[in-house]
Amino acid sequence: MTFKTAFASLLATSCLLSAVPAAAQFAKPEDAVKYRQSALSVMGTHFSRIGAMANGRVPYDAQAALENAEVVAVMARLPWAGFVQGTEKLSQKAKAEIWTEQAKFKEHQEKLLGETSKLLAAAKTNNLDNLKAAFGATAASCKACHDTYRN
Amino acid sequence: MTFKTAFASLLATSCLLSAVPAAAQFAKPEDAVKYRQSALSVMGTHFSRIGAMANGRVPYDAQAALENAEVVAVMARLPWAGFVQGTEKLSQKAKAEIWTEQAKFKEHQEKLLGETSKLLAAAKTNNLDNLKAAFGATAASCKACHDTYRN
Repeated sequence: MTFKTAFASLLATSCLLSAVPAAAQFAKPEDAVKYRQSALSVMGTHFSRIGAMANGRVPYDAQAALENAEVVAVMARLPWAGFVQGTEKLSQKAKAEIWTEQAKFKEHQEKLLGETSKLLAAAKTNNLDNLKAAFGATAASCKACHDTYRN
Repeated sequence: MTFKTAFASLLATSCLLSAVPAAAQFAKPEDAVKYRQSALSVMGTHFSRIGAMANGRVPYDAQAALENAEVVAVMARLPWAGFVQGTEKLSQKAKAEIWTEQAKFKEHQEKLLGETSKLLAAAKTNNLDNLKAAFGATAASCKACHDTYRN
């Protein structure tokens, strides 16, 4: 097993960040909002770099695609802990349905985690067509959640 | 080799995010500032959770310490790409010396990467004293850079 394979397996099987109750992790509700927005922003930056290759705006660079996919796969686990009770009114971007449809919101998170794992696997194949397909599926997962839960 | 050992090895040996010239990675200088601030903020959130255990403010939880140390070790690689030319005046927090002392600034980054790798290794020992020592060394690395380069 290579390092990179092990890294993907860790991502797929780890219970990373599931051990501590989300509400206990932030001193102030504003901290939770800043955290989730920061994590989503960093994830978006790296994801958009893959998109630039998938869409032909920049030349395909397999190593860069892999590095960005690794970061995306790690970041995809993080933002959700910031959507805690008590932050419902603190951001205009977050719709109230996030807190009234917790099970559905969680499904979107799980979907994203699955797609970002596949994106990482696709990046490892060093094949642009695979990357394009996985990028499209991941982007659809982002969009589905944004369309439903983001103003 | 376990998954977790492999993860640490990957972190220690990977050339993650070194392949693409930093200046080419952001459409606008403001994007670079937002990126570095977001990455530093996410890193700080997870690092402070380890600090809470190291300082006895919350009970020691070896699994939580490990999960936070994993995120810190990944995040520690990211912010520096955002300190690109053209962003010197965009944040009051970043001192001009960052851009006039690039070699020294880079040394601070490398120091942090070393310390966060050790922090992850310490978290894996499931020993609070080890965690405290590594937390202290990592915090000193943060502080040294902040004292010199942050307003």
